Amino acid sequence: MLTWIRPTPEERAYIRAMGDRLIEAVERTGVAKAMMVGSVARDTFVRGDRDLDIFMLFDPSLSQEELQEKGLSLARRIAEEFGAAWREKYAQHPYINATINSLDIDLVPCYAVTSATRIKSAVDRTPFHTRYIKAHINGYVDDILLLKQFAKAGGVYGSDHMTEGFSGYLCELLIIHYGGLHQLFEAAACWEPGITIDIEEHGTKQFSEPLVVIDPVDPERNVAAALSLSRMFEFVELVRGYLEAPSEAFFCRPTTPPLTREAFIRLLGARGTHLFSVTFATPDYTPDTVVPQLRKSAESMRVLLDRNGFPANRIDVSMQKDRCMLLFELMVDEVPTICRHIGPPVWSPENARKFFAKYIHGEVFAGPYIEDGRYVVELPRPFTRAVDLLRSGTLLDIALGRHVRRSMEGGWTVDVGAGCWDEEFAGFISQFLERSSPLVRIRRAMRE
Amino acid sequence: MLTWIRPTPEERAYIRAMGDRLIEAVERTGVAKAMMVGSVARDTFVRGDRDLDIFMLFDPSLSQEELQEKGLSLARRIAEEFGAAWREKYAQHPYINATINSLDIDLVPCYAVTSATRIKSAVDRTPFHTRYIKAHINGYVDDILLLKQFAKAGGVYGSDHMTEGFSGYLCELLIIHYGGLHQLFEAAACWEPGITIDIEEHGTKQFSEPLVVIDPVDPERNVAAALSLSRMFEFVELVRGYLEAPSEAFFCRPTTPPLTREAFIRLLGARGTHLFSVTFATPDYTPDTVVPQLRKSAESMRVLLDRNGFPANRIDVSMQKDRCMLLFELMVDEVPTICRHIGPPVWSPENARKFFAKYIHGEVFAGPYIEDGRYVVELPRPFTRAVDLLRSGTLLDIALGRHVRRSMEGGWTVDVGAGCWDEEFAGFISQFLERSSPLVRIRRAMRE
Repeated sequence: MLTWIRPTPEERAYIRAMGDRLIEAVERTGVAKAMMVGSVARDTFVRGDRDLDIFMLFDPSLSQEELQEKGLSLARRIAEEFGAAWREKYAQHPYINATINSLDIDLVPCYAVTSATRIKSAVDRTPFHTRYIKAHINGYVDDILLLKQFAKAGGVYGSDHMTEGFSGYLCELLIIHYGGLHQLFEAAACWEPGITIDIEEHGTKQFSEPLVVIDPVDPERNVAAALSLSRMFEFVELVRGYLEAPSEAFFCRPTTPPLTREAFIRLLGARGTHLFSVTFATPDYTPDTVVPQLRKSAESMRVLLDRNGFPANRIDVSMQKDRCMLLFELMVDEVPTICRHIGPPVWSPENARKFFAKYIHGEVFAGPYIEDGRYVVELPRPFTRAVDLLRSGTLLDIALGRHVRRSMEGGWTVDVGAGCWDEEFAGFISQFLERSSPLVRIRRAMRE
Repeated sequence: MLTWIRPTPEERAYIRAMGDRLIEAVERTGVAKAMMVGSVARDTFVRGDRDLDIFMLFDPSLSQEELQEKGLSLARRIAEEFGAAWREKYAQHPYINATINSLDIDLVPCYAVTSATRIKSAVDRTPFHTRYIKAHINGYVDDILLLKQFAKAGGVYGSDHMTEGFSGYLCELLIIHYGGLHQLFEAAACWEPGITIDIEEHGTKQFSEPLVVIDPVDPERNVAAALSLSRMFEFVELVRGYLEAPSEAFFCRPTTPPLTREAFIRLLGARGTHLFSVTFATPDYTPDTVVPQLRKSAESMRVLLDRNGFPANRIDVSMQKDRCMLLFELMVDEVPTICRHIGPPVWSPENARKFFAKYIHGEVFAGPYIEDGRYVVELPRPFTRAVDLLRSGTLLDIALGRHVRRSMEGGWTVDVGAGCWDEEFAGFISQFLERSSPLVRIRRAMRE
């Protein structure tokens, strides 16, 4: 199996040679040192990966503005020297992304600090990670490659906000800590939330995340901070499934084609639930900025819907190039006119008096009456249909992410049931309706 | 106001004379002593009351069977001597209910025990209550009459299981304890749940009821045990309303005519809720036996409905002569086919394995998938319509009262929406839909 995961010698030689040429070009200018970081530098890249990361290390005495100006100018110069198509991008600070011979190359300016605890921005830490892994990787390259491919196939690879899974660095540390892939699997099968790994035994802080892996180059950082409880235990589930019945299938991402529109309508009808989509223009920021805002906004809307009598079975979000979609599967789409409003206990005289005075002459359907010693009144609801609530301005009164709010202020669309189908989101909608754990997908793929 | 609450001198003289004649007749036989108990004996009966209670006190050395035989035989003899229509009835043990000149007379055999703490059945305690009140009522007769009428008008008088309100004895003790009606009202306006009154300062037990009034003749008994939290605070609400704006209206039960069928349909339509009634033959037992079973059965059905996705706004029960009705106002009458079934956390390996194995090949709509570290699966529901659930045999699988179950085994009827209207239950259904606290009813009656 490793034969198709491991890069070919030609592939490796080519990508490393390109890296060396870029480093030489940077250092020739005398403006900064340069180093390869990431999986190419560590020899832990999987066949077909086309990512090459070159960090340009500047003097820490430069100001942020100087670093940005000098860094970008140098990166542009290098890209042009290589005849590359390039574009400016932003993570914590700007960098240049260039394409040379189908390689996807990032040229990232950072500070050459003396220790990972002295970093001025997150990118300064990366060179330390690369040095640490290179110093400890001895003999584990194949295990790391297998683990990365296993995590990719299971859909739990990537520490971006959409995935909330395992980063490459986390995979490398886990293999180093447990001493190999099999040893990691045996241990992970018994993981519980809150497990802590501290290779250098130098951790000083308490973390609340489900998996805590203290960064060997920074005792105050949890390398697994981005890993969600769900992704962590999807990995555990995959590991147990693999140990029970090892198979190459665990290293191949099952390709489930999206539903057709007809199949979607049939499936939704069988479920009998009420599907609602909220779509709007994608804010012009990176997924790592936008996706958490989509999640937050969808969660606020779920709470709003629930408070208005429309409980959700599930919600999910998707960010595509032009539009974002929030999807709500509701158990109820229409509710009665009345809703209960529970007031104070009658033994709280001042509150009870106010409540009584407010509703005795008000427009109520029933009450005030006393139930278990508390006042209750039955009032008309502002919204009896979920679609009216989702289309109302109320949606802008709740906690949305900043960029999501700005986009929605320009308008949003609410679709209902079969009307939610949208070719741009076909994969997302299909996975939403047919949701299952990675092991279920792999087991089903194996049966076919 | 007292003038129409207090019985007329003629009324009082007549009913007391009848009592004295009955006592004389009992004692003349030499078989038992006799005494008047209840509000007539205490002079605390309200004009128009036609109840006269004569207790026949037998030697405590008799067995239960002997007491029952001798007691009923004596009571029948007396009733026939007075030319009365009579019938046998059961409370804790049997007694004779006779009608003489439109007076409703109970002839109750009991044991002449020497202390209320030595009683052999609940009725033996009654003579002690009468003796205690007669010894302490001095000067409070009018206050007691007013309190009873106030509680009657407010719908909180009666310790039967339907009302769950204030008994006559409880009213008497409250007046004696606080030293008059106004003093009681001032105190009750500030009552909180758990308040304890112990006139003889001899209580030995902890009680969990919202109002605790230790029986002056039995330190282990809470006279207010039957009082519900709701009735207690309806009384408090009435008291506050009266103190704010005293009015005779608080002593007149507002007569709200039941809705017409048309008004009922209109009101139900405006509420937009889903009304369901379950009716069946009334079990042949007293309300104090049947009503708690109706309540328990309705509560079990409410839980069953809720678990199946049909949450109730309110439920209530009614026992009429021939039929009983359980009424459910649901917020939802139809639910989607799917329901979430939440499984074990994935970090519990054995449970997780079983859950996965059970559902991986099962008939599921989605899943198993992992949410916050737990397995979830979406399954088809057994019932998607509340009416199907209520008509199904599932209703006999839940905790119903014994007599209710027996009656329902003979069949029950489920009606929906406008179909729930039933002239026999018109008052009950009307009060259900237009539910409000006693003070609201009085204030609204005052406005008209």
